[in-house]
Amino acid sequence: MTTNQVDGLSRADGVAREIFDRVGDKWTLLVISTLADGPLRFAQLKERVGVNQRMLTQTLRGLERDGVVSRTVYPTAPPRVDYELTPIGRELLALVTGICEWTRRNVEAIETSRHDYDARAAAPPRPVTGG
Amino acid sequence: MTTNQVDGLSRADGVAREIFDRVGDKWTLLVISTLADGPLRFAQLKERVGVNQRMLTQTLRGLERDGVVSRTVYPTAPPRVDYELTPIGRELLALVTGICEWTRRNVEAIETSRHDYDARAAAPPRPVTGG
Repeated sequence: MTTNQVDGLSRADGVAREIFDRVGDKWTLLVISTLADGPLRFAQLKERVGVNQRMLTQTLRGLERDGVVSRTVYPTAPPRVDYELTPIGRELLALVTGICEWTRRNVEAIETSRHDYDARAAAPPRPVTGG
Repeated sequence: MTTNQVDGLSRADGVAREIFDRVGDKWTLLVISTLADGPLRFAQLKERVGVNQRMLTQTLRGLERDGVVSRTVYPTAPPRVDYELTPIGRELLALVTGICEWTRRNVEAIETSRHDYDARAAAPPRPVTGG
């Protein structure tokens, strides 16, 4: 990212942070991942994700509101309701999967780094700023 | 992501959520982006990001603790302190940039979707679950 891109971030950065907040939510991550292979009904999603009805409803509303998941009602009795990633939702899935895979690949390095950092923090103070 | 990958998420998912929380922070996003072109000193970062000293110190500590940013002290007088993305930090930069670019490309579609959703929400209630 160039400095110009950083400057350009200001227009969309509020929305970008909301997107990171949203995909940082456990249930959102799992719902997006679970919809990777195609549309699912509410009850199927509920079972596969292992989430209660209230949390799933709330998660799906957020994703539908952002246009990441679409909701289709079929006029059967009882009505059948399918949830599916939209085209922009599929793009987001690929990026979110990338960060999950990065974390999985590096989880040991991250935990080792945290352990070492905390051990150093217990040592005598050091100059933090400077430069 | 397959169902197995979703199951596998449980081991690293706590860390993944922390990473999303961290990169969802405005200053973290800006610091990672600003370090894209190479190492910078604290004062340079402070000026380019436009952040106060306390917030920058806090942001850099979090990134250094996770092993995403490295901190090098040169024994000059006064000491010079450089901050640089680590190899795993550069991988994360690419993924984070991808989500920022996705947001920038789709910010109008997301805002239109939210507007339409809120307009529909003001209409008579609909069945939310079912299926």
